[in-house]
Amino acid sequence: MSDQPISRYPVPRLEDLPEDIRARILQVQEKSGFIPNVFLALAHRPAEWRAFFAYHDALMEKEGGLTKAEREMIVVATSGANDCQYCVVAHGAILRVRAKNPLVADQVAVNYRKADIAPRQKAMLDFAMKVALDSGRIGEADFAALREQGFSDEDIWDIGAIAAFFGLSNRMANLTNMRPNDEFYLLGRLPKAK
Amino acid sequence: MSDQPISRYPVPRLEDLPEDIRARILQVQEKSGFIPNVFLALAHRPAEWRAFFAYHDALMEKEGGLTKAEREMIVVATSGANDCQYCVVAHGAILRVRAKNPLVADQVAVNYRKADIAPRQKAMLDFAMKVALDSGRIGEADFAALREQGFSDEDIWDIGAIAAFFGLSNRMANLTNMRPNDEFYLLGRLPKAK
Amino acid sequence: MSDQPISRYPVPRLEDLPEDIRARILQVQEKSGFIPNVFLALAHRPAEWRAFFAYHDALMEKEGGLTKAEREMIVVATSGANDCQYCVVAHGAILRVRAKNPLVADQVAVNYRKADIAPRQKAMLDFAMKVALDSGRIGEADFAALREQGFSDEDIWDIGAIAAFFGLSNRMANLTNMRPNDEFYLLGRLPKAK
Amino acid sequence: MSDQPISRYPVPRLEDLPEDIRARILQVQEKSGFIPNVFLALAHRPAEWRAFFAYHDALMEKEGGLTKAEREMIVVATSGANDCQYCVVAHGAILRVRAKNPLVADQVAVNYRKADIAPRQKAMLDFAMKVALDSGRIGEADFAALREQGFSDEDIWDIGAIAAFFGLSNRMANLTNMRPNDEFYLLGRLPKAK
Amino acid sequence: MSDQPISRYPVPRLEDLPEDIRARILQVQEKSGFIPNVFLALAHRPAEWRAFFAYHDALMEKEGGLTKAEREMIVVATSGANDCQYCVVAHGAILRVRAKNPLVADQVAVNYRKADIAPRQKAMLDFAMKVALDSGRIGEADFAALREQGFSDEDIWDIGAIAAFFGLSNRMANLTNMRPNDEFYLLGRLPKAK
Amino acid sequence: MSDQPISRYPVPRLEDLPEDIRARILQVQEKSGFIPNVFLALAHRPAEWRAFFAYHDALMEKEGGLTKAEREMIVVATSGANDCQYCVVAHGAILRVRAKNPLVADQVAVNYRKADIAPRQKAMLDFAMKVALDSGRIGEADFAALREQGFSDEDIWDIGAIAAFFGLSNRMANLTNMRPNDEFYLLGRLPKAK
Repeated sequence: MSDQPISRYPVPRLEDLPEDIRARILQVQEKSGFIPNVFLALAHRPAEWRAFFAYHDALMEKEGGLTKAEREMIVVATSGANDCQYCVVAHGAILRVRAKNPLVADQVAVNYRKADIAPRQKAMLDFAMKVALDSGRIGEADFAALREQGFSDEDIWDIGAIAAFFGLSNRMANLTNMRPNDEFYLLGRLPKAK
Repeated sequence: MSDQPISRYPVPRLEDLPEDIRARILQVQEKSGFIPNVFLALAHRPAEWRAFFAYHDALMEKEGGLTKAEREMIVVATSGANDCQYCVVAHGAILRVRAKNPLVADQVAVNYRKADIAPRQKAMLDFAMKVALDSGRIGEADFAALREQGFSDEDIWDIGAIAAFFGLSNRMANLTNMRPNDEFYLLGRLPKAK
Repeated sequence: MSDQPISRYPVPRLEDLPEDIRARILQVQEKSGFIPNVFLALAHRPAEWRAFFAYHDALMEKEGGLTKAEREMIVVATSGANDCQYCVVAHGAILRVRAKNPLVADQVAVNYRKADIAPRQKAMLDFAMKVALDSGRIGEADFAALREQGFSDEDIWDIGAIAAFFGLSNRMANLTNMRPNDEFYLLGRLPKAK
Repeated sequence: MSDQPISRYPVPRLEDLPEDIRARILQVQEKSGFIPNVFLALAHRPAEWRAFFAYHDALMEKEGGLTKAEREMIVVATSGANDCQYCVVAHGAILRVRAKNPLVADQVAVNYRKADIAPRQKAMLDFAMKVALDSGRIGEADFAALREQGFSDEDIWDIGAIAAFFGLSNRMANLTNMRPNDEFYLLGRLPKAK
Repeated sequence: MSDQPISRYPVPRLEDLPEDIRARILQVQEKSGFIPNVFLALAHRPAEWRAFFAYHDALMEKEGGLTKAEREMIVVATSGANDCQYCVVAHGAILRVRAKNPLVADQVAVNYRKADIAPRQKAMLDFAMKVALDSGRIGEADFAALREQGFSDEDIWDIGAIAAFFGLSNRMANLTNMRPNDEFYLLGRLPKAK
Repeated sequence: MSDQPISRYPVPRLEDLPEDIRARILQVQEKSGFIPNVFLALAHRPAEWRAFFAYHDALMEKEGGLTKAEREMIVVATSGANDCQYCVVAHGAILRVRAKNPLVADQVAVNYRKADIAPRQKAMLDFAMKVALDSGRIGEADFAALREQGFSDEDIWDIGAIAAFFGLSNRMANLTNMRPNDEFYLLGRLPKAK
């Protein structure tokens, strides 16, 4: 299966990449044990690659009111709604690891309303889905509902921005026919893997 | 997590069930090592239970032009479209086992168009999705497209009937808030589990 | 018009059918004066036929909090939403007979919100439509709304299960291009026919 | 049942109507044996009434390539798509009378693709539905498809204009909660009634 | 650009038109400085032309609780929802002139929820959009919401009827591929043009 | 009107911004004569601001097979589909300037199928809309259609990436309730302004 192309577009060899991109990729490989295909597939366009991962890090690595597991819930739920196989599989794995919960990713991917998550998290995902699917109707009532659950306005920006950014990511993955690495499927599913 | 209710409705105890239902359930438990929750949740209504599993077996256990893995592909793809967590998780597991492929179920659940399956199988799922989502528009052109892929008219009935039957199953799972067994999530994912 | 095929698939002759199926069909013919085409079209697959009618009877012939007319309202409203000509025409006739009301079936088929039915029945059909069209969003609020109208949880199961079962039936009718008998169109419309 | 209001809005008495409107209404009553409620409900606004029926007559009473039955098919199919009970019931009756066919209206109302009508008429209804539901995508290919079925460009204007005009009519009926006369339900269903 | 056809259909010359139609068109030209293309494109069918403009005037020129600018807001918002280029451009111009506001038309055309209009006007447009897109679900709650904003039942008829009439207009413009006059684009945008 | 807030979130003062951000903003102000609100509204989050504009420039300022006007067409068409007032108004202005055409932006915003653009540009926008609205169904046939119009695979990446990036931008504008500058509305509409 690993012979399948990971993108419709040419995928650069590590050694042909600009130094900064190669360094980051090697660092990820070091940490994860493999290179997630998104790093290679998007490297076909170095300038876009740099902006993409800068944006990603600004949202996913920052401090804030959302836990890292909650951010991954947003990614998995909205990527499911956007029919993005790469992001559901890859971020499903990260969600399992971050939440230390082997079940939650598959639940959220299909129907977060029935997942083993808190009511506050379901409200968070209701809003993320509205950003993903019907952002023109976002209004004060949506903000009020989240504030009632204890989210600050900065948290709400985070929720919306993560949904918006992965909407971009989902579309790029669908455009390039990006293939999830085989490694993601099992990650975080086994007690020892946590 | 196993303390969570498996249905919004009362779940009968095995010993309170009619003999025929209990016998079938014990047989499944014997074979699978656990009792899939659908057998217990639907047993709240024995007459419906009997009809449900008779229908299930008539479609899923019969001989025919579709392999058992292909039938499970239909279940997983259409259950995803119907937002049914129970069926995606449970039949995703069965699909992995039947296809001897740990990746295919997650792929089909999110977007079968990008799954590691044959073009003939994608055509099969195109039709299953039309039955699930827009059956009033089924016409001769749909039959012609499937015949071109080598499906007989009896195969087409099978594809359509499986999509239709699991549409019923998906709605019952959503009505009862049926919870997938924890065991399903890992089933068929490990080399040794196959 | 009666020369038109009643199914895309071969329709068995009565004398070629298994004894149990033929007996039931003759009994229906005795009672109704004609054989509704669904009995013949589905008999192409005897095992599925048996499960289908066992399920049908378990939902439509049982005792319970819903009147028989109310059950037919569910069938007509959801079959309209599923674009199923056979079920709207056939069950529209049965609804007219059961409700002793020559107008209600045509009203419910187009827009039940404007039909001559009770508010409680409109709430019942709101829920049935959600099961038919968006079952993944069923939640506690839906159950609460029905309980407020006096429905028990068992009634709610009935409403949901009828919508789910006829969703299967609608899809099989669309798959097989099932043709409603000419007799249905006039049934229950004339004062004397009641 | 005849005690039910026929509109959310005040309905003028015949004797209070302007002479031209009353004359037309009496003429219709003379011909049909009853006054279709649309004539009374819309008379709440005489200026709009006059424009409405002038438009109606310009499309439905003129000579042209479409038979009167075909024009009513367009009304019934698009009114079904617009969830308009009044127009499906009232124009279903007229369609039965015009087509001298007691079955065709119920078939077209639910799913014209499976009705006992000619392929040319199904193409006509495909276009009418596009005008009703997605007119922004009408393009040369749609015109070409109809020309291939023998429709002239003037016929295509008729098809589109009828779908557009009854879209207005459907919305007015839904706005005013217009009730179809009981008389419509049976009209054209009995051999002698033709 | 002015060489582009203004309709898919033949456009009559002014001198070939019936006297009443030509008189009205010359009057409009006198007042506006140009002939809006809708007057010429629809004149291909004089009887429909007369009914169309009689209906238009009955709704847009009458007295009533809605200002003329508010009526144009309804036209612009619903024409946007119906993908009608002619009506958004032409009535956007009229809205700018009537509201003496060079910004409001572009705002309403894209997303009236974020336009510089009063809450009462947003409620008015919520209802107009329901009439345009989902009239079968109009119910008492919609009327109550508008009454709370101070609209009378006659105002509500006006809102609904304008949305319904321009739904017809939008579909005719899309059917005929009607082209907005170049003059509309700049109208009402410049301080001096008001 | 200029007193209206430009964002739901706090908007930093120029002098409080990091040097690199302030410098870029002053440069834009120098060139355009005003500061487009997106530069200020997004500056609430400097790290995201930097990634956003780096991404923007990578797609919109690069060399390639698409003209700058064509890129703006993509922005306007997809922003209309995403109900984003800010982007339709702001990029509508830029499109008018880039295309040296005062009409094209309003046409594309409502219905690009009827705009004064080349067939090749309509094909480009068909694909952009699929990326914006249904990216999970992108397949080889879409690529083939664009190649037939002379687009290279790199051009297709550009089309898709612009649609994807502005999908993010649209959602951020809707999240923050971003207000278009009054200056945009008239830009590029007057002969002298070109």
